[in-house]
Amino acid sequence: MLSSNATKKLVLVSGRSYPALAKDIASHLGIEVLKTTLYDFADGEIYCRYTQSVRGDDVFVFQTHCQPINEWIMEQLIMIDALKRASVRSITAVIPFLGYSRQDKKHLGREPISCKLVMDLLTAAGVNRVMSVDLHSAQIQGFFNGPVDHLQAMPTLVAYIKESMKGCNLAIVSPDAGRIKVSEQWSNRLGGVPLIFLHKTRDITRPNVTVSKEVVGNVSDKDCVIVDDIIDTGGTIIGAVKSLRAAGARSVTVVATHALLNGNASKDLANCGAREVVVTNTVPVPEEKRFKNLTVLSIAPVLAKAMKAVFEHNSVAGIFEEGA
Amino acid sequence: MLSSNATKKLVLVSGRSYPALAKDIASHLGIEVLKTTLYDFADGEIYCRYTQSVRGDDVFVFQTHCQPINEWIMEQLIMIDALKRASVRSITAVIPFLGYSRQDKKHLGREPISCKLVMDLLTAAGVNRVMSVDLHSAQIQGFFNGPVDHLQAMPTLVAYIKESMKGCNLAIVSPDAGRIKVSEQWSNRLGGVPLIFLHKTRDITRPNVTVSKEVVGNVSDKDCVIVDDIIDTGGTIIGAVKSLRAAGARSVTVVATHALLNGNASKDLANCGAREVVVTNTVPVPEEKRFKNLTVLSIAPVLAKAMKAVFEHNSVAGIFEEGA
Amino acid sequence: MLSSNATKKLVLVSGRSYPALAKDIASHLGIEVLKTTLYDFADGEIYCRYTQSVRGDDVFVFQTHCQPINEWIMEQLIMIDALKRASVRSITAVIPFLGYSRQDKKHLGREPISCKLVMDLLTAAGVNRVMSVDLHSAQIQGFFNGPVDHLQAMPTLVAYIKESMKGCNLAIVSPDAGRIKVSEQWSNRLGGVPLIFLHKTRDITRPNVTVSKEVVGNVSDKDCVIVDDIIDTGGTIIGAVKSLRAAGARSVTVVATHALLNGNASKDLANCGAREVVVTNTVPVPEEKRFKNLTVLSIAPVLAKAMKAVFEHNSVAGIFEEGA
Amino acid sequence: MLSSNATKKLVLVSGRSYPALAKDIASHLGIEVLKTTLYDFADGEIYCRYTQSVRGDDVFVFQTHCQPINEWIMEQLIMIDALKRASVRSITAVIPFLGYSRQDKKHLGREPISCKLVMDLLTAAGVNRVMSVDLHSAQIQGFFNGPVDHLQAMPTLVAYIKESMKGCNLAIVSPDAGRIKVSEQWSNRLGGVPLIFLHKTRDITRPNVTVSKEVVGNVSDKDCVIVDDIIDTGGTIIGAVKSLRAAGARSVTVVATHALLNGNASKDLANCGAREVVVTNTVPVPEEKRFKNLTVLSIAPVLAKAMKAVFEHNSVAGIFEEGA
Amino acid sequence: MLSSNATKKLVLVSGRSYPALAKDIASHLGIEVLKTTLYDFADGEIYCRYTQSVRGDDVFVFQTHCQPINEWIMEQLIMIDALKRASVRSITAVIPFLGYSRQDKKHLGREPISCKLVMDLLTAAGVNRVMSVDLHSAQIQGFFNGPVDHLQAMPTLVAYIKESMKGCNLAIVSPDAGRIKVSEQWSNRLGGVPLIFLHKTRDITRPNVTVSKEVVGNVSDKDCVIVDDIIDTGGTIIGAVKSLRAAGARSVTVVATHALLNGNASKDLANCGAREVVVTNTVPVPEEKRFKNLTVLSIAPVLAKAMKAVFEHNSVAGIFEEGA
Amino acid sequence: MLSSNATKKLVLVSGRSYPALAKDIASHLGIEVLKTTLYDFADGEIYCRYTQSVRGDDVFVFQTHCQPINEWIMEQLIMIDALKRASVRSITAVIPFLGYSRQDKKHLGREPISCKLVMDLLTAAGVNRVMSVDLHSAQIQGFFNGPVDHLQAMPTLVAYIKESMKGCNLAIVSPDAGRIKVSEQWSNRLGGVPLIFLHKTRDITRPNVTVSKEVVGNVSDKDCVIVDDIIDTGGTIIGAVKSLRAAGARSVTVVATHALLNGNASKDLANCGAREVVVTNTVPVPEEKRFKNLTVLSIAPVLAKAMKAVFEHNSVAGIFEEGA
Repeated sequence: MLSSNATKKLVLVSGRSYPALAKDIASHLGIEVLKTTLYDFADGEIYCRYTQSVRGDDVFVFQTHCQPINEWIMEQLIMIDALKRASVRSITAVIPFLGYSRQDKKHLGREPISCKLVMDLLTAAGVNRVMSVDLHSAQIQGFFNGPVDHLQAMPTLVAYIKESMKGCNLAIVSPDAGRIKVSEQWSNRLGGVPLIFLHKTRDITRPNVTVSKEVVGNVSDKDCVIVDDIIDTGGTIIGAVKSLRAAGARSVTVVATHALLNGNASKDLANCGAREVVVTNTVPVPEEKRFKNLTVLSIAPVLAKAMKAVFEHNSVAGIFEEGA
Repeated sequence: MLSSNATKKLVLVSGRSYPALAKDIASHLGIEVLKTTLYDFADGEIYCRYTQSVRGDDVFVFQTHCQPINEWIMEQLIMIDALKRASVRSITAVIPFLGYSRQDKKHLGREPISCKLVMDLLTAAGVNRVMSVDLHSAQIQGFFNGPVDHLQAMPTLVAYIKESMKGCNLAIVSPDAGRIKVSEQWSNRLGGVPLIFLHKTRDITRPNVTVSKEVVGNVSDKDCVIVDDIIDTGGTIIGAVKSLRAAGARSVTVVATHALLNGNASKDLANCGAREVVVTNTVPVPEEKRFKNLTVLSIAPVLAKAMKAVFEHNSVAGIFEEGA
Repeated sequence: MLSSNATKKLVLVSGRSYPALAKDIASHLGIEVLKTTLYDFADGEIYCRYTQSVRGDDVFVFQTHCQPINEWIMEQLIMIDALKRASVRSITAVIPFLGYSRQDKKHLGREPISCKLVMDLLTAAGVNRVMSVDLHSAQIQGFFNGPVDHLQAMPTLVAYIKESMKGCNLAIVSPDAGRIKVSEQWSNRLGGVPLIFLHKTRDITRPNVTVSKEVVGNVSDKDCVIVDDIIDTGGTIIGAVKSLRAAGARSVTVVATHALLNGNASKDLANCGAREVVVTNTVPVPEEKRFKNLTVLSIAPVLAKAMKAVFEHNSVAGIFEEGA
Repeated sequence: MLSSNATKKLVLVSGRSYPALAKDIASHLGIEVLKTTLYDFADGEIYCRYTQSVRGDDVFVFQTHCQPINEWIMEQLIMIDALKRASVRSITAVIPFLGYSRQDKKHLGREPISCKLVMDLLTAAGVNRVMSVDLHSAQIQGFFNGPVDHLQAMPTLVAYIKESMKGCNLAIVSPDAGRIKVSEQWSNRLGGVPLIFLHKTRDITRPNVTVSKEVVGNVSDKDCVIVDDIIDTGGTIIGAVKSLRAAGARSVTVVATHALLNGNASKDLANCGAREVVVTNTVPVPEEKRFKNLTVLSIAPVLAKAMKAVFEHNSVAGIFEEGA
Repeated sequence: MLSSNATKKLVLVSGRSYPALAKDIASHLGIEVLKTTLYDFADGEIYCRYTQSVRGDDVFVFQTHCQPINEWIMEQLIMIDALKRASVRSITAVIPFLGYSRQDKKHLGREPISCKLVMDLLTAAGVNRVMSVDLHSAQIQGFFNGPVDHLQAMPTLVAYIKESMKGCNLAIVSPDAGRIKVSEQWSNRLGGVPLIFLHKTRDITRPNVTVSKEVVGNVSDKDCVIVDDIIDTGGTIIGAVKSLRAAGARSVTVVATHALLNGNASKDLANCGAREVVVTNTVPVPEEKRFKNLTVLSIAPVLAKAMKAVFEHNSVAGIFEEGA
Repeated sequence: MLSSNATKKLVLVSGRSYPALAKDIASHLGIEVLKTTLYDFADGEIYCRYTQSVRGDDVFVFQTHCQPINEWIMEQLIMIDALKRASVRSITAVIPFLGYSRQDKKHLGREPISCKLVMDLLTAAGVNRVMSVDLHSAQIQGFFNGPVDHLQAMPTLVAYIKESMKGCNLAIVSPDAGRIKVSEQWSNRLGGVPLIFLHKTRDITRPNVTVSKEVVGNVSDKDCVIVDDIIDTGGTIIGAVKSLRAAGARSVTVVATHALLNGNASKDLANCGAREVVVTNTVPVPEEKRFKNLTVLSIAPVLAKAMKAVFEHNSVAGIFEEGA
């Protein structure tokens, strides 16, 4: 019988969706991203190979599900398959922005639940744990039958707002009914600032006419901070900014975790009258999508801290304790 | 080689949670509930046996998850295990009220997702399909990896309100942020009546003091209809009734699907000033929980129609089409 | 690449079925039971949360399946689900008395095999190993597709009898055919004392008349020790005591592992003429079930020793070696 | 959309363990065994191919687990794998004698539960249902997580004894403690004839000396019928015959379901003084194992009846109703 | 108990990879492709919904894995998830060209087996059967644990060559070692025409210099037909054409099943000296990839015939019998 | 909470197929094979028990799939089942020659894929990793959904040839099309010696007459080395030797990994004119199969090195690096 002390190693590998963020996380951990061969064949198939042994290691597979989303999901699955066959000790999928997270239920009969499918695919490929930031709904954790480390961008964003808007007459704004709970947490973290929200109204005398947004709460002289999880094409948010300004808000700041900025989002946001738009880099925000009053905060420290806690078996919840 | 035409048979069996409703469904289907032996041993273990062959049948296992909830869940699992070993063709769990449906996410670290667990237990026991009414969140459908027939009580409830409140000056009230979407569907089904809702406010100068409910929208001279999915101890609803009346509502009617009526709910509801409380019988409402202005509508026709559609491979969504 | 030495930690958590025994085990291990929040909501649903991080730990989930049995099984499943999602290293279900263990086969068509179901539910919830005491049949180990640590109360019970009945003219009695093998082990452990057993007879001239018990072996002047696994309502045991005394036994002592003591078992046992009734505390024996000549031995040392052996990778079989 | 009436077909295929019995079953069903190519390559690997399409059929894969047992188990698994890939509707493993059925529990630490393994292998290969005769323990049904049709040889054997021993002074003998329950069923089916049994005794003054069998009950002038499930090397049975004759039995008849007749069983049984040995052909009894007073009854009618009931969705339990 | 005759329906749905081929198959079956809503959201996520009930139907999900390959694989998985939740009877993935089929093994350590992954993903999504044409290796069938209908383009291609090259002095050419078996089948189907092949040689005196192709067999005055499964960038094939012509072939015709035609394949093939290039449309061959002497044969009749055979439970192997 | 440093132990157990090789591997590792009780019961069932605790260990289960192949496969599965229930940390099946590896695809409809079945059985029994030597096709790695350590005999064989044939005028011969790639690796490892191969030809004027082998390449004055993976009955190899000699080869040496030597292989090889036949001992080569010019090299060092690398989490690929 041979015997030895067990040691364990944390390894970080990265797909091609956002290598700069992976590198940033690695430097927070004081390590390097493991060199991985990844390219497309002429027919569009992805090729993957790890250049060093990963036997017995705890491997974190970084990929964010930005565009081209289906390409990056498949690449992550392929990377996981290779690890499963390479005798690693555990595989954690690190997905700052989880794709298909808004397709988490059937709105109509004969629809898929694509977010559950993504989790099933990760499971089939061989993932043991999932780490993500600000999932669109908390129920998504139940779509994976193992540990999900659900990280929050809120502490990062709150800290920035606290600092940059010191002395302002703050109010937190929920852009629709579904975000009220998160808005309340923001209000608490900022010491109990007023909560304002918007809701759809419709003129009942003209049943099929467009819905407008009504501002609930007093915004006059307030420095409003709209908080949301995803900015996709930006329509809802821009409408909210305009409603708030029309209602007399002193200033309107937009805060969101996932800055997809699809379509004309950047141009429209730049011109909608918002004081500042603050987001994190859970997805890459390339130069051409950036605009003057856009601030992009790095999510790398949060991910690095969580990965270290997972590896050292410390509480991940503890990282976000103030807001838990 | 022996060959024959395949025929198929629908069989309904029932646990002990609510036999009267099972019988009611059966009579809508023109069949009888299959006689099943079910009792507790002296040590509390449940005994189950079917008295007739169910080989090759499509069996619907009826059980609602009312109190004692853990007892009834275990009984349903035991009934399913017996069917799995008895060569049935398919097993559909019919659960008008799904237990643990409010525990569909982790609010804090180191909590279970008990609703996902219940679905996993049903799967482990051998269920092929789940049928339920008004799940607490739509994401729960993704907790079961097969067909979920998600039925609605709304058509039944709307029809009753339309008829019984003909001529009233209706307004639909959402008791909290999470129910706004359902409230909008109510408003639509009633021809676009106004939507009112309540939201928590807090006095920011006194941070730890109780939250009160603010009424958003004009209720004076309105016959308000509060719509909710579950009445448990009734606290939220009763607070809403009082707020609305204080705000000048002409009358307040409460409508909900699942009438758990725990604790003093019945007494408090009877005395809270509501014109009428309208619920369905997805869980039994025993005599001692009934009160003068409580109306209990039968969910049996909806369940029977859905079971027939499933058996005959017709669209279940079609049953609720007006509201889909 | 981060690397570190792997360490591992044993954690004990307990459901609400028998906290005193869990505490007792913990003190034998020199640890404390991890504080866990557990209560029922108004609708009977169970809430569970662990108050400290359990990441990377080997967690033992203690619950005995006494009454209300279905409640305690569900609670244990919920506790396991929470652990599975909390990144533990392994989950061992510690179940001194396994519920539904007598429903380990189909006696008739269309019955469940509920004991297999319980094992399937534990598996579905996420258990890696099961630890139990004196399973009703040895085949039950095959119902779980992983390690089962099947502990024995016999060494504890034999040691007590050896000491307390020193100088007696012992004979071991098997109360029915199914227990003969265990009785032989008792006989061996006591140095080869005579074996007596009881079997049903029937008067063949009166086919449908009640069965009586015939004593096989010579009991006159013997201090008989009846050995059984479970005392439920006690009927069989009490009949055995009476038959033995009628056949001339000097004294009759009853020994059993699991003291369910349902119905009038305590009162009837107290008055049946047994010299002493010796059981273990695999299920709680509350004050009101205790009677004068009942002796309850603690199973805690055996469970603590086994858990330590599992954690340190020592042989569990070794603990019971004398009788293996 | 193409549509058509669904029909279904029963197909019987057979391994090489006992083709004559398969053919016999087929002729009871009025069909032919489907021709299957089965042979060994030079290196001992088995080759299998079905000569006709089996798409959409309910296929019964016949194989009894006689010697060489591991060969026949592997052959059956290979046959099942081929069916799974050939688009059949369902696969039923028909195993008159299930191999490894006596290894249904761990007697000692670090043993396998080989009978559970056999069931797991059948499941992995793709079996949907198992059909077998007189399993060694009833708990084995719980080793397969689907329908198990557990057939009985008893009605066949009882009918033969009733007819051939008409007018005898019958007594049923249980050869050891584990068979008492089955013996009682025999006694009932024969109208309540006396029950006798044998149990091991040991001289406690000479601890390590051989165990002998004590006859419990009055056998003088009785025509004893020993009933057992398996005759392997025959040692236990032959000892029982001798004990009974020594105790004054008028005649001793041996009845068993599975006639393995290993080692010198046939020679020894022929010469042990038994009036007749009655078995079924759940395993082949080749000419060289047959002896003068051996009677082999065919199990084919029972298997054919059960297969027909399964195919036509009739109760299998009903076939054995008198004895259930 | 309700009972009815079981009927079954074949439904064809199609992703967006090649709707024209799906329509063509449907018209061969005399049905219409079921209308399905499929589009991309602004963030690249795919939306899917079936416009009619598919309860109880046998659904064939058509998608070929051409470019953008990862997009089409994900779309097919999403379509399957929706069907699984919509109570269909069975799901068959129809994939004329299976993506990642050349990544069916590890060439080096720490590579994935991406073709196995694709099969695992299909399984996880809920597929019951796979239908494909000319898989790159036959072992791929073993990657799916259920029925795989492996169709052949060869009969279609052979028939065309027989007709169009009537009177030619044919020889079949295998472009590399791996294709020799298929080439032999071609030779047989054409009545035993000569077989020629190409193999790599290297000048052993100059170890690191490029490999060239040696023609084995006599090609002078022969009308050579090179047969291959996939034309990707065309390099190997074009080299083969040139070698054959240099060796004196009278004409060179290229035949292949899957015409990926990536990079400059079309231009290079058009100019390489081949008499004709004959392929099937298992992937779309858009106008811009077509060239003068390219012939595209439809695979639709083969797929339609196989789907009908599957639905009616007839032999699929029978369709290709001449060449089996 | 108890805590301790985690240690881990490598344990080697062996079935009865080839204990001498297991012992040889153990001595290379500096350990002993763990003593295991293994024997057949009278009815052919296998009994297994480990004589020492293996809790928490990394256990390697050695068994080669030589004759009687089905017996040894079943034995290995039984050994694995026992380990799974004995709380080991991981189970690696070490199978120098994997049975059924040539049945890795369907050649015809309604065949099994027996090699996939063997992998499925290993998985069902509880294996975590497979280690084997020179699998018949590389795709077989995809049949196991976890790590497969695919070892090579080539370095061992090449080293022997290099040494023993120093000064010879070497040429590598591929005996059929399927082995060309491996032959090229041999050629490379030997410094670029010429490659020769054999292919089937047929006289097209006499279509049904036997196929002969044509030698491609110049063999005169060459010391030919035929390389193959398996020598079963030896027919192909012996034909190749004769063809090469007829074509003027100076000498012919045969090299293969797996020496099954079934039927008359040994006698025929001894007399076929080969200079030497060099094989490894992945299967036992008993005295009676040995002949004068047969050389059997030990595979033990390769297996021992790989097991050590697995246990210590070093690269296994690295062992074969020169040829990778």
